[in-house]
Amino acid sequence: MEFVKEFAIFLYKNDIIKFGNFTLSSGKQSTYYIDIRLLPSYPHQYRKIIKNLQNLISEQIGLEKFDTLASVPTGGLVIASSLATEIVKPLIYVRKKQKEHGTSKLVEGKTAKGMEILMIDDVATTGESVVNALKILKEEGMNVNHAYVIINRKEGADKLLESEGVRLHQITDILEITDILYKENLIDEQMLQSVKNQVN
Amino acid sequence: MEFVKEFAIFLYKNDIIKFGNFTLSSGKQSTYYIDIRLLPSYPHQYRKIIKNLQNLISEQIGLEKFDTLASVPTGGLVIASSLATEIVKPLIYVRKKQKEHGTSKLVEGKTAKGMEILMIDDVATTGESVVNALKILKEEGMNVNHAYVIINRKEGADKLLESEGVRLHQITDILEITDILYKENLIDEQMLQSVKNQVN
Repeated sequence: MEFVKEFAIFLYKNDIIKFGNFTLSSGKQSTYYIDIRLLPSYPHQYRKIIKNLQNLISEQIGLEKFDTLASVPTGGLVIASSLATEIVKPLIYVRKKQKEHGTSKLVEGKTAKGMEILMIDDVATTGESVVNALKILKEEGMNVNHAYVIINRKEGADKLLESEGVRLHQITDILEITDILYKENLIDEQMLQSVKNQVN
Repeated sequence: MEFVKEFAIFLYKNDIIKFGNFTLSSGKQSTYYIDIRLLPSYPHQYRKIIKNLQNLISEQIGLEKFDTLASVPTGGLVIASSLATEIVKPLIYVRKKQKEHGTSKLVEGKTAKGMEILMIDDVATTGESVVNALKILKEEGMNVNHAYVIINRKEGADKLLESEGVRLHQITDILEITDILYKENLIDEQMLQSVKNQVN
């Protein structure tokens, strides 16, 4: 919790989270915007996040309970790459579109049937991109039971992943972040309420 | 050199480098194919590569001589992300295409005029993708003097980068790899010659 508080204030003070009116890449409207791609620009804070993720996975799942990390380009893959070298685990990733040339494949890296996969992404919103990726991994015979994100925006990801038998874990979520920022007098009650209205 | 020998044999024995007739993503023909995206699937070897890259940069440039690592999705960015947490340096990346929604930008991460950038990529062939990226960084007022790759395919990258005032460094190149594999009796003289004919 102490780490999450420090992290929430860091996000706010460095404009990684902004409040206002935003149009997301999905076309949806949002009362806040998280540019998580700024995170690796703050290497000490970024490293803390990676270490925190490692500790959570170690405590909640166990590092010996999965074979390989999997992610999706681009934001999530940055996190997963840093984590993979930190915990010395293999890393694969799932492309969004088929490449046109070369040895065309959707999954990059070494795969095998029965491989236990831990999914990593930066931010979960509806969960669609993670679910698309894990479906491809499952079709290729791999097992996916858990996914970790840095921030859960809580707009359906938990349920969508659950419907695929995958439990979504997080470092923090937008309600927790907003609540901390409200208690620190960094955002007002109206903003807190509009974020609460946005999640489901 | 001992590391490069071990690395070359590792690449060959795990089919990360293959010899034959290949069509590259550029449409070009090649007598060999390197699937460097398999590398993070071998976490101990991958970590050695990252450590080797760190040592080379430290000896040849100095870790204090640059502010930020920059890379391009997807293969290069995986390497750069692992390296960034290892050396505790900021990381930014340059997208190939403009995103359609959100806060559209080509460069992801925190940038500033006068920032000293070290470019990282996985494999250099003609050098075009790295040069496209560093031109964008230069247009935004950043300085780029050095670039590092894991493997240099030596098909024009050195000269193209030099024309932009950027020196291309490498862990190894295709001539060195092929020479090691020939001396280890893993490929024949004809293959060695056809690779030599391909580089320039």
